[in-house]
Amino acid sequence: MPLGDKQGWEKSESRYCGVETEFNDDMPSVLTSNLSPGFFDFVVAPLMNPTYRPSLVAKDASGSSPVLPFASSDLVLSPSQWSTHVVGKISCWIDLDAEDETLRVDSETTLKQEIAWASHLSLQACLLPSPKSTSCANYARCVNQILQGLHNMQLWLRIPLVKTDEDAVDENSKKIVDSWEVWNSFRLLCEHHSQLSIALDIMSSLPSITSLGRWFGEPVRAAMISTDVVICGKSLLSVPKTESGLAPNTSNVDNQSVPSSFNHLSHPLKSYLNYIGFLFQKMDPVPEQELFELGYRDFLQSPLQPLMDNLEAQTYETFEKDSMKYIQSLVKLEGWEDIVTIISCDMRHWNAPEEADILVSELLGSFGDNELSPECLDGAQRFLKRDGISIPSSYTSFIQPVTASKLYNDVKSHKDLVHFETAYVVKLHNIARLAPSQPVFTFNHPDYSAKKSNERYKKLCFKMPSDAGSALVHGFAGYFDATLYKDVHLGIEPSTATPNMFSWFSIFFPLRTPVCIQSGSDLEVNFWRSSDSSKVWYEWCVTSPCASAIHNSNGRSYWVGL
Amino acid sequence: MPLGDKQGWEKSESRYCGVETEFNDDMPSVLTSNLSPGFFDFVVAPLMNPTYRPSLVAKDASGSSPVLPFASSDLVLSPSQWSTHVVGKISCWIDLDAEDETLRVDSETTLKQEIAWASHLSLQACLLPSPKSTSCANYARCVNQILQGLHNMQLWLRIPLVKTDEDAVDENSKKIVDSWEVWNSFRLLCEHHSQLSIALDIMSSLPSITSLGRWFGEPVRAAMISTDVVICGKSLLSVPKTESGLAPNTSNVDNQSVPSSFNHLSHPLKSYLNYIGFLFQKMDPVPEQELFELGYRDFLQSPLQPLMDNLEAQTYETFEKDSMKYIQSLVKLEGWEDIVTIISCDMRHWNAPEEADILVSELLGSFGDNELSPECLDGAQRFLKRDGISIPSSYTSFIQPVTASKLYNDVKSHKDLVHFETAYVVKLHNIARLAPSQPVFTFNHPDYSAKKSNERYKKLCFKMPSDAGSALVHGFAGYFDATLYKDVHLGIEPSTATPNMFSWFSIFFPLRTPVCIQSGSDLEVNFWRSSDSSKVWYEWCVTSPCASAIHNSNGRSYWVGL
Repeated sequence: MPLGDKQGWEKSESRYCGVETEFNDDMPSVLTSNLSPGFFDFVVAPLMNPTYRPSLVAKDASGSSPVLPFASSDLVLSPSQWSTHVVGKISCWIDLDAEDETLRVDSETTLKQEIAWASHLSLQACLLPSPKSTSCANYARCVNQILQGLHNMQLWLRIPLVKTDEDAVDENSKKIVDSWEVWNSFRLLCEHHSQLSIALDIMSSLPSITSLGRWFGEPVRAAMISTDVVICGKSLLSVPKTESGLAPNTSNVDNQSVPSSFNHLSHPLKSYLNYIGFLFQKMDPVPEQELFELGYRDFLQSPLQPLMDNLEAQTYETFEKDSMKYIQSLVKLEGWEDIVTIISCDMRHWNAPEEADILVSELLGSFGDNELSPECLDGAQRFLKRDGISIPSSYTSFIQPVTASKLYNDVKSHKDLVHFETAYVVKLHNIARLAPSQPVFTFNHPDYSAKKSNERYKKLCFKMPSDAGSALVHGFAGYFDATLYKDVHLGIEPSTATPNMFSWFSIFFPLRTPVCIQSGSDLEVNFWRSSDSSKVWYEWCVTSPCASAIHNSNGRSYWVGL
Repeated sequence: MPLGDKQGWEKSESRYCGVETEFNDDMPSVLTSNLSPGFFDFVVAPLMNPTYRPSLVAKDASGSSPVLPFASSDLVLSPSQWSTHVVGKISCWIDLDAEDETLRVDSETTLKQEIAWASHLSLQACLLPSPKSTSCANYARCVNQILQGLHNMQLWLRIPLVKTDEDAVDENSKKIVDSWEVWNSFRLLCEHHSQLSIALDIMSSLPSITSLGRWFGEPVRAAMISTDVVICGKSLLSVPKTESGLAPNTSNVDNQSVPSSFNHLSHPLKSYLNYIGFLFQKMDPVPEQELFELGYRDFLQSPLQPLMDNLEAQTYETFEKDSMKYIQSLVKLEGWEDIVTIISCDMRHWNAPEEADILVSELLGSFGDNELSPECLDGAQRFLKRDGISIPSSYTSFIQPVTASKLYNDVKSHKDLVHFETAYVVKLHNIARLAPSQPVFTFNHPDYSAKKSNERYKKLCFKMPSDAGSALVHGFAGYFDATLYKDVHLGIEPSTATPNMFSWFSIFFPLRTPVCIQSGSDLEVNFWRSSDSSKVWYEWCVTSPCASAIHNSNGRSYWVGL
């Protein structure tokens, strides 16, 4: 029964709870004993006899290929049972980076055989054992080879949730161990493959909250919780927050053997399951406004082109029809027919009958000036009295570096340069914010200065927190804050955001090559707002720790038409 | 007159010597006074009056666009004179990263105007002034914008040849200044644009030889030599070695003014020119064997496919015809008709009439096993007596990390993944070798071991020299060394290479994203030799300082057919 099965929870916010089982030839009885109503949703089951070693089999065999010691025939469960109720657990003994060559080769053979079998069974996912050391290039190489030919199945790499202090050393006097770094190497080696994700092993002690934060930008599909953790009474409230992504997620509530005979009306781990359910139910339900936005989470949208005249005619028609209708209904509704006159035209070309005292506009984009508010208001300020007021009177854009593996993968999936040099409007969710945001460009209105220009250049330096561990920067989250008048502001910059406002999502500027950055070091970033006679665009780049390419040179990929 | 104008020098090895001049409206007389026979080959001349500032002009002008203060009309020289004899010198005062916004905007305007004028004049190159500080993102952004629309002209970025010690600090107490790092940032920001290259400013003291070595892998088009350097008597013998690339190269022998009236039969800098010529002539001429190979320098060739049967039939026919003819002529010539029998077939399928005492083979590729010598000799060793000898008895491949901007650019120009995941046979020239080479894979013949496999995995750790400064790794140079019999070896690994052997060039494994690496740190690299029933391939990746993608997974881009 899904954990979120109560009022006020959206289906997509449900979480599923599975149980890790031992090797057993009799899969139907494994399912019966663990998945009865009120018990678990699925099992994480070994697919092959753990004593199997290819090199030993080969010695015995007389040339003909032996039958592999898989758990059960594929026919003992229906395809939908295999797919819905079983996550394959790859043999834990495999070690593809072992010094011993026989073990290494046996490991590779076994891994490939088990994944092939799991694919045949149409399992949704397989759990890969944790890398045995921080050096895991051969394991990654083999998984990467497998991923090239894998159609639907997900591979969950089991990663222990540990980060020791900077000065800690292992038995070989090497600095250890930030498991995020192991994951980061593994996924860089596998090129951010979208079918490779994480099963986080929750240990009895948690790393610092800053270091934990990095997982919020990662494809964490499951949290594995040992019964030890629950017994020693540590708080588990933080766990569901690290669970982001698609169902099914597993919470492994046991790595002990399940007794072979027990009361079918109960389950030895029922109390643990109940406790997890209790914790999950205690979480606040998603607020109503957030429910509305669930479908938009991490979904990349192309920014608007409000001034450009070569959008498809129909797009404009639809837009104008709707907004005309909306505004005129409203005028009537409020009884303003005699007071308000609606003029539908480009404000840059309208001739006002008299100068105005106040100019109120709503031209702001997610990044403030990105829908050309500066250019529009420059064109409109001539019908404002010299001592007139513009609302907003100013606005500022902000950026901060983020880990956002899902967004990066979505951009990458287009396989072209253009998408890597475009900013997207997006409801940010599965991201890690790596440093506080900083202001980028500011515009004031009205502005009567002689050499006025709407071009801008800003260099920013983000100091990475010294206790978080190293991080990967996939790009920059962007926001705006506007001063409407005097001390009245409105905006979406996280630390000062106007509450309960959902007219604007954030903006996301991707990086073509993600940047690895060490704890405590500086990330130097440059942003430009450029223009020519027909368009406005941004360019951006990183200059430290190492220079990136300049993105969107001359607005070659992304621009807003004037 | 080209410096290399003597016996034993190839035209392409010639170097040209130019002179930097001051702003002068009268270009014909600038050329006459500097380029008379026996004087310089070209001038490096300012294109615009150095007092020009766009912001001042704009103030004076009454709306109509003013005539820009260019040196001379385009008509005073013929197009071929402009192109052959003049390198444009961009105004030195420009500073696109200045704090002062007016200066910054003036600088950008001027740079774009001068380059546009130089393009109109069909100049071959313009000299860009050195970045004023290590922070040069805005300068790079502007140059990068210009490069997007530049058709033929080269831009030479002037870079002073300096690298201070690690602990040196500038007036703002910041660590300074490795000018290679400035160049590296600049070219990364400009995405290794092939029209962006270097004019190295030789100063009166040189950095350490290890640090100098990095420039050997860079697109250095010119060396600028101040008269001060010659006066103070420093050796200039190292200069011509840093000059690699295409003519014309400039050696700037003056940044002083040339007196306006002087004897037309002489030139005030003639003695400097003579001295440069003398130093150049003192260099050893290119050895005859190298002359033969000049055309192959840094030219990427696809590796052979010796066993594959789906090459174009004609390719095979041509190859077989030629070699048959060659071998049979030789047999006849030596009078061996009665002793030698030539069998033309695949050695893996031939049935030998009797077992041999010695098996001599020549199946080695540039990387040793890359032309499938292991697989061929495995197939052939069955007709060797059990105590028979294989020549070669073993061979080992080697790699070392290199800076190779030309090779990287050539690979990148294909704009696809396949070329970045292919190894190339290449006569390496314009490269910097960043650390001594290390052995990768070894094969021994004959090999009767029971579980013989020709798959291999090797992890290597290269320690970067601590005094060289940081570096950029574009890929790996590969070599082989073979033991023919007992202590007789043959190979191309640089430190042990067989002299005067030119049957093998090196091999080059590119990296999709060049890796920045700090002085003194570790570069960890992994190489695999994999195979399936139909092919053999390599995979490779970097795992430290930061993980790269695994290149050529499953041999998707590059493989050798069995």
